[in-house]
Amino acid sequence: VRHLPIRFRYLDKTPDITAIRAAASRIAQEAVVTPLLFSAAINEILGVRALFKAENLQRTGSFKFRGALNALAMLPEKQKHKGVVACSSGNHAQGVAEAARILDIEATIIIPDDAPSVKLARTRRSGANIITYDRMTEDRDALAAAFQRDTGAHLVHPYNDPDVIAGQGSCGLEIADQLTQMNIQPDRLLVCTGGGGLTAGVSLAMHDRFPDLTIHSVEPEGFDDYRRSLIAGKPLMNSLRGGSACDALLSESPGEIGFSINRNHLSQGIVISDEEAFNAMRFAFSELKLVLEPGGAAALAALLQNAASWQGETVGCILTGGNVDSNTFRQALSNEGKSLRQPHNAEDGGETTDVE
Amino acid sequence: VRHLPIRFRYLDKTPDITAIRAAASRIAQEAVVTPLLFSAAINEILGVRALFKAENLQRTGSFKFRGALNALAMLPEKQKHKGVVACSSGNHAQGVAEAARILDIEATIIIPDDAPSVKLARTRRSGANIITYDRMTEDRDALAAAFQRDTGAHLVHPYNDPDVIAGQGSCGLEIADQLTQMNIQPDRLLVCTGGGGLTAGVSLAMHDRFPDLTIHSVEPEGFDDYRRSLIAGKPLMNSLRGGSACDALLSESPGEIGFSINRNHLSQGIVISDEEAFNAMRFAFSELKLVLEPGGAAALAALLQNAASWQGETVGCILTGGNVDSNTFRQALSNEGKSLRQPHNAEDGGETTDVE
Repeated sequence: VRHLPIRFRYLDKTPDITAIRAAASRIAQEAVVTPLLFSAAINEILGVRALFKAENLQRTGSFKFRGALNALAMLPEKQKHKGVVACSSGNHAQGVAEAARILDIEATIIIPDDAPSVKLARTRRSGANIITYDRMTEDRDALAAAFQRDTGAHLVHPYNDPDVIAGQGSCGLEIADQLTQMNIQPDRLLVCTGGGGLTAGVSLAMHDRFPDLTIHSVEPEGFDDYRRSLIAGKPLMNSLRGGSACDALLSESPGEIGFSINRNHLSQGIVISDEEAFNAMRFAFSELKLVLEPGGAAALAALLQNAASWQGETVGCILTGGNVDSNTFRQALSNEGKSLRQPHNAEDGGETTDVE
Repeated sequence: VRHLPIRFRYLDKTPDITAIRAAASRIAQEAVVTPLLFSAAINEILGVRALFKAENLQRTGSFKFRGALNALAMLPEKQKHKGVVACSSGNHAQGVAEAARILDIEATIIIPDDAPSVKLARTRRSGANIITYDRMTEDRDALAAAFQRDTGAHLVHPYNDPDVIAGQGSCGLEIADQLTQMNIQPDRLLVCTGGGGLTAGVSLAMHDRFPDLTIHSVEPEGFDDYRRSLIAGKPLMNSLRGGSACDALLSESPGEIGFSINRNHLSQGIVISDEEAFNAMRFAFSELKLVLEPGGAAALAALLQNAASWQGETVGCILTGGNVDSNTFRQALSNEGKSLRQPHNAEDGGETTDVE
C-alpha cells in the first residue's frame, strides 16, 4: 500500500489555495500575523536581499499553532466532545494544546521524554494531558492508536493531515501579502522541513502568487528524507530516529499528502549541520535580536551556507520556531568567536546542486 | 542660567506633533516600522493586556536610529560636509553612524571604554571614527567640544535636540497607528528612560491620539533622575556615573528640552533593579522570543513589577533595544530558576505611588 502512486490516493483530500484561504480566515482571530523582517546590515553582509518570516513570534512560539487551530476548528462537534490526541516532540504539542484550550476540547499529547523541557512545560501550561515515551524503544503510533481505541479521541497528525497543511499555508499567504505590500518579487524561499506540512502549505500559497519562485526544503544532517525522496520520486525513510540538535525536524519520512504537493513545487533540498544551526541561532541573536530554536534556524543556516551563490537575489526565509531551553541557547551563544562556515562557492556544487 | 523656567527657554525649538509627523515621513524610507506584539500567554500570566513595541527589531538594534537619521537629514548641506560628532555609550553611536553612512556624512563617535563590545563593533562596522574615553575620569563633553572646535563638526546630542526628539516620536506615532488599527484603547504606557528624548517624543505622539493615557518613565536604580526631577519640578542630577547593567539608560540628568515636554505628560516614575532587568530579559527570551539588552528590558521589568496593581488594564511597553553582548545575555539566562520578583501589592505604595 505504501508505494501506490500518491497523487491518486489523496486526490480528494489534498488541500489547495482555496482551503488555505479558508484556513487563514478561520484562524485569523487567534493567530498572530507575524512580521516579515529585514535588515540592511544583513543584506550587506550576505550580498542578498533577505526577508525573514518570524514564526518564532507566533502564538506558542512556532508556526504549528496555525495548522493545529485550523484542524481542531474543523472537527465535527461530536468529535470535539471526545477530545484529541497528538504525537509531538514539542511544537505541534503546544499548538494542539493551545488550540484545544481555546476551543474547549480535551487534548492528550504523546511526547518523547527527551523533548526540550521548555516544550514540555509549555504544553502542560495549556492544560493538556501528557503521556511521555522513549523515542528509541517505544512506538508512539502504537501508543496513539491504543489511546484512540480507548477514548475515541481524534488523532491530530503533525503534518499528514490536509487541514493541518491548509493551516500552515496561511503563513505562506501572509508572506505573499507582505511581499506584495512591499512591492517585492522573491527569487527563492527557504523552509525548515520536517514532515513537510508547512513546506506544502507555504509552497501552494507562494506559487499561487509567485509561480516562478524557487523553493528549497531545509533539513538537518541525518534527516534529509525530503531531499532524498525528491530525487527518488517517492517518500523514503530516515535511518536515524534521534541525535540531531534540530529536535523539531526529526520526522521519519515525508508525509504522503505533503509529499504529493511538494514534489511538484520544490527545487533541490538543502542539508545543514547542527553547528550551522547553532551559528544561525547566534547570527539571529546578534543581527535580528530574535530567539530561534535549532530547527527554527535551519532555513537561516541554509541562507548563510549558500548566500555566496545567490548574490543579488531576493531570498525569503521562514524562521519556524523559538522554543529553546536556555541551556541550549547558551551553548549556541558560547560558540561565539568561531567564524561562520564559509558559504559554498558558486562553482563547487555541494548540497544544493546535486538533486533533480 | 540652568534654572530659568524651562518652558520659555526652548519655546521655539520644542518639537510638537507636526515636527514628529514630518520626522516620520522623513525617515520612512530607511527606518523599520517595528511590530506591536502581544502574547495570549503573557496576558494570562500577568492579568493585563500587554502590547510590546519591539524597537529591538529597529535598524541598528534600537530606537536611536530614528532620531539620529531625522537630525542628520535636517542638517544644512554645508554642515553635512563638515561631519558630525556624537557622545554615546553605544546605541546612539550606532544610530548616528548608520544614519551618517546612509547620508554620506563623516561621523566621529566618542564612546566610553566600558561600552559593550558589541556596540563598539557595530558602530565601527558602519564606518564611523571612534574615540574612546574613561567614563570615571574623563569629561566626554570637553572631548566633544574640542573635536568640534578643531573640525567644525556638528554635535548630535543623544536626547537634548529637538530633531532627535521628533525622530524618536515617530515610534509613538507608529504605536498610536497600530493600536488604532487593532481598535485598542491603551490605559498605560511604559517607556525606558535615559535622557528622556524617546519619552518626550513618544509622549507627544501618544497623548495627541490618546489624551487620557498614563505614561510612566522607567529607570534603573541609582539613575532615577527623571523620577526625582518630576517631583522637584526641575532637572536634577544623578550622583552615580556608572555601575548599572542598564548601560543604555545612564544619563546624568534629564535633557532640558525633553524635560520641558515630559513634565506635562508623565505620571509617576518607576525604578527597576538590575536583577529585575535580567528577569525581564529572561521573560522576553522565553515568552516573546526576543533578545533584549538590560536597558531595553526596563519597561518590561516595570510591567512585571507592577502588573498585580494593574489587573485588567491595557498596558503598552516599549522594548527599546537589543544590543547585548552574548556573555551578558548568558548571564541573564543563567539566573533561570529564580522566581520573578513578586509584583507590588496594589496597596503597598512603593516606587510607583510616591510621586506627584
